[in-house]
Amino acid sequence: MALSSAQTQAIRKLLRTGATARVGRVLARHHPADAAALFTDLTPAESRLLFDALLETKQAGDALRALPETLLRDVLERIADDKLATMIGRRPPDEALWFLGLLSEARQPTVLTRLPAPLADELQRLRRYPEGSAGAIMTPRFLALPRERTAGEAIAELQQRGETLEAIFYLYVVDADGLLAGVVSLRQLILAPPDRPLYELMVGEPVRVDVGEDQERAAAIASRYNLLAVPVTENGGRLVGVVTVDDLIDVIHEEATEDFYKVAGVDEGEHVFAPVLRSVRNRFSWVLINLLTAFGAASIVALFESTLDRLVVLAVFMPIVAGLGGNSGTQSLTVMVRGLALGELEFGSTIRAVGRQFVIGALLGAAAGLVTALLVWLWRGNPWIGVAVFLAMLANMALGALAGAAIPLLLRALRFDPALGSGVLVTAVTDSFGFLAFLGLATLFLPLIGA
Amino acid sequence: MALSSAQTQAIRKLLRTGATARVGRVLARHHPADAAALFTDLTPAESRLLFDALLETKQAGDALRALPETLLRDVLERIADDKLATMIGRRPPDEALWFLGLLSEARQPTVLTRLPAPLADELQRLRRYPEGSAGAIMTPRFLALPRERTAGEAIAELQQRGETLEAIFYLYVVDADGLLAGVVSLRQLILAPPDRPLYELMVGEPVRVDVGEDQERAAAIASRYNLLAVPVTENGGRLVGVVTVDDLIDVIHEEATEDFYKVAGVDEGEHVFAPVLRSVRNRFSWVLINLLTAFGAASIVALFESTLDRLVVLAVFMPIVAGLGGNSGTQSLTVMVRGLALGELEFGSTIRAVGRQFVIGALLGAAAGLVTALLVWLWRGNPWIGVAVFLAMLANMALGALAGAAIPLLLRALRFDPALGSGVLVTAVTDSFGFLAFLGLATLFLPLIGA
Repeated sequence: MALSSAQTQAIRKLLRTGATARVGRVLARHHPADAAALFTDLTPAESRLLFDALLETKQAGDALRALPETLLRDVLERIADDKLATMIGRRPPDEALWFLGLLSEARQPTVLTRLPAPLADELQRLRRYPEGSAGAIMTPRFLALPRERTAGEAIAELQQRGETLEAIFYLYVVDADGLLAGVVSLRQLILAPPDRPLYELMVGEPVRVDVGEDQERAAAIASRYNLLAVPVTENGGRLVGVVTVDDLIDVIHEEATEDFYKVAGVDEGEHVFAPVLRSVRNRFSWVLINLLTAFGAASIVALFESTLDRLVVLAVFMPIVAGLGGNSGTQSLTVMVRGLALGELEFGSTIRAVGRQFVIGALLGAAAGLVTALLVWLWRGNPWIGVAVFLAMLANMALGALAGAAIPLLLRALRFDPALGSGVLVTAVTDSFGFLAFLGLATLFLPLIGA
Repeated sequence: MALSSAQTQAIRKLLRTGATARVGRVLARHHPADAAALFTDLTPAESRLLFDALLETKQAGDALRALPETLLRDVLERIADDKLATMIGRRPPDEALWFLGLLSEARQPTVLTRLPAPLADELQRLRRYPEGSAGAIMTPRFLALPRERTAGEAIAELQQRGETLEAIFYLYVVDADGLLAGVVSLRQLILAPPDRPLYELMVGEPVRVDVGEDQERAAAIASRYNLLAVPVTENGGRLVGVVTVDDLIDVIHEEATEDFYKVAGVDEGEHVFAPVLRSVRNRFSWVLINLLTAFGAASIVALFESTLDRLVVLAVFMPIVAGLGGNSGTQSLTVMVRGLALGELEFGSTIRAVGRQFVIGALLGAAAGLVTALLVWLWRGNPWIGVAVFLAMLANMALGALAGAAIPLLLRALRFDPALGSGVLVTAVTDSFGFLAFLGLATLFLPLIGA
C-alpha cells in the first residue's frame, strides 16, 4: 500500500546521505507503483538518486510507468541517457517503445543506440507504425503455434519460452503461411487433455485488427467481445502482434480525456501540472476562435442598437435567452459525443437520434420559456416582452439541441474528430441565434410593447 | 465479423417463417456480440423469436451482454420471465446479478425465484452490496488455495474445477483463517516446477479492495498496478470475491460518461435513444437551476439599466466579456475534472494546481482582452470602452479559470461528485461577474467616455 509521509521523509533523508542501496531495499517491500509518487516531491538531484536506487532493484520501469504520462516526461528529462537505456532495455518492446516516445525527438535516436541490439531492432520495426495505431501499441512477443500441435506440447512450449513472452492470455494458432487461423485461451489449454490438437480446441476466425487501424478500434473490440488481448494482423491475415488489455485500458482513459478536452477546446497535451506557458499557448488558438464567434454574436446585437435604445430592458433578458440555449445545446452535445464514443449510434438510426434531441430541446424550451415569460411579465408588467422571450427561448433551445446533436455528426462526416471544438461551435450558434431571435421578435413587437 | 445487411434480411425472413432452429445455426457461425445488433432492428415479436433461437444455441447471454445497457433494458422487457431465467441461470453470478439489476424492481423477485437454487442463493448474498460497490460487481467463484499446496496440485485443482471458475487470471493464496495472504499469476503457475509450494511462488500482501468500496477504486487500482483482477476482502482481510478486468473496463467507460454528463448537467440514465420524455424530465431540473443563475446574471444587468440607457453600445460587448470568461472557466474545469478522475492530483499540491489555472486564465484574459479592446476602439472610435472591455475580460477570464479549478474541489470537499453541475456553476460565475465588472467599469468611465 502507499507510502506514509513519515516513510517519504525517511527516504528523502536516506537519498540525501547517498544511501541508495538502502532506499532500494526499503522500496522493494512496496509495490513499485507506490514508489512512483515519490518523484513528484523530490528535487531533480534527489530524483536522480531515487532512480538509481530503483534501477539497482530492477524496479525503475515498473515504478515509472505508474506515473501519469505528463509527469513522467519531466522525470525522464532528468535522467541520463545511459541509465535510461538500462531501464528501457529491461522492458518488453511495446512498453520500451512507449517510454521512448515520451522522450524529445532529439533524444530518441541517442537512447535507441544504447539499447541491446535485438530490442533496438524490434523498436525500429515498431516505430514505423503511426502513433495511435494498433501497430504502435502491440507487442511482437506472442506465442503462435501450428494447428497440429497438442495442448501438452503447447504448455511445454509456454514453459520454455514463457519468460520472453508478454501476452500469454491466449495462444494463437497459425497456418503454414503464418496466417491467423484460431485462438485458444490459456484457460482452455490448461483444462484440455494434453493430447488434444490445437485445431480441435481453437475458436476459428478470431476477431482481429489491422496493424494500421486506430488503437481506439482495438479497445472497442476488446470491450465489445470481452477479450484480454486482440491479435494484430498485416497484409490480409499474417499475425504480427498482440495488443493486450492493460494497454487498452490506457487507450480507453486517453480517448475519454481527449473527447472531454476537445469539447471544451483544450489541447490533449494538457494536464493539471503542465507548464503554464505551454497551456496558455495551447488554449490561445481556441480563445481566438471563441473571440471570433463572440464578435459574430456582438455584431448581431449591433444590428438592433436602435431597438435596444428604445427599450433598454431587452439587454437584461438577452443573457437568459442565450444562456439557456447554450445549456440545451451542451446537454445534447454531451449525450451525442458520448454516444459516438461508446458506439451506441451503431445500434439505431442517426437521424432518429438527432430528431430526438430536437424534440427534447423544443419541449425544454417551451417549459423554460413559459416560466421565464411569466417571470418577465411579473417583473416588468409588459406581456409582449414575455411573448418575445418565450418564442425566442423555444426556438433557441430547440435549435441548440439540434446543433448539439448535429455538429459532432457533421464534424465526423468532414473527417474531423466529432468532439473537436464542438462546445465552442454550439454556443456560437446559440448565442448568435438567441440574440437574433429575441431582438428580432422584440423589434417586431415594439409597437405592441408601446416603447 | 459483423453481419451484412443481406444476412440481416435473411435472418429476419427466417424468423418470420418460424425457422428459429435454422437461425440458431446461422448465428452460431458468428460471434454472439454480432447477433446483438440484430435486436435493434426487429419488431418485439421478431426479437422474441431471435431470443428463442439464441437460447437454443446457448448464445443468448453472450449476445445480450454486448448490447449497450440502455438498449438492453428494452430488449429484456420483451422476454418472458421463464426464458429470461433460463438465460440468466447459465451466466456466472456477477453477470447474472447485472442482468437482474437491469429488470424493473417489481420483476426482479419473480425472475430470481425461477433461477436454480444455488445461483439464487449466491445472488441473494451479492444483492446485499450497494450498487456501485466492489461487492456488487465481484464474482464469488474464484480459486483460493492454502499456502502449502504445490504448483502441480494447484494446476490439477484448476483442471478439475475450471469449468465453474470465472476468474482464473490469478490464483489466490489464503491462510488457515481464509485471510488473503498472496497471489500467484496463472502464468507463474505454468512456468513453475510442479513441486514448488505456493508460498514460494506467491507475491505477498497483494493489493485489494474492501467489499464496500467504490467500484471506481477497484478500477483505479487495476489501472495503476496493471492487474487483470482485483481481490475483494471483507472484515479485515477475508477473501470473498474477485473483480475482473472485463467488468472494470465497463466501470471505466461508465465513470467517464458520468463525469462528462455531470459537467453538462445531464442525468446518468440518458443515452442517444432514451425515451424523449424521460430525457426531458431528467434535464429539466438542470434547466431550472440554469434559469435561476441566468436570472441572477440578468438582475446584475438590470442594476446598470441607466448606464445602458446612456450608452446602449455596451449591450453589444456584454456577450463577449461573458462568453470568453465562460470559455476560460470551462477549459480549466475540464482539465481539473479529468485530473481528479485520473488521479493526477495525487501527484502534487492542489493549491499549486488551482494557482496554475488562475495564472493561465489571467494571461489568456490579458491577451484576449487586448485584442478585443483594440477591435472595439477601431470599431467604435472610443478608447475608454476598450479599456473597460480589457479590464473586465482580464478579470473575468482569470476568475473563470479560478472558479473552473476550484468548483470541482469545493464540490468534492462538500462530498458531492466533483463534476456535478460544475459547467452550469462556472458559467453562472462568469456571466454574473462578467456583467458586473464590465458594466461597473463602464459606469465609472462614463464621464471619460463622454456619454
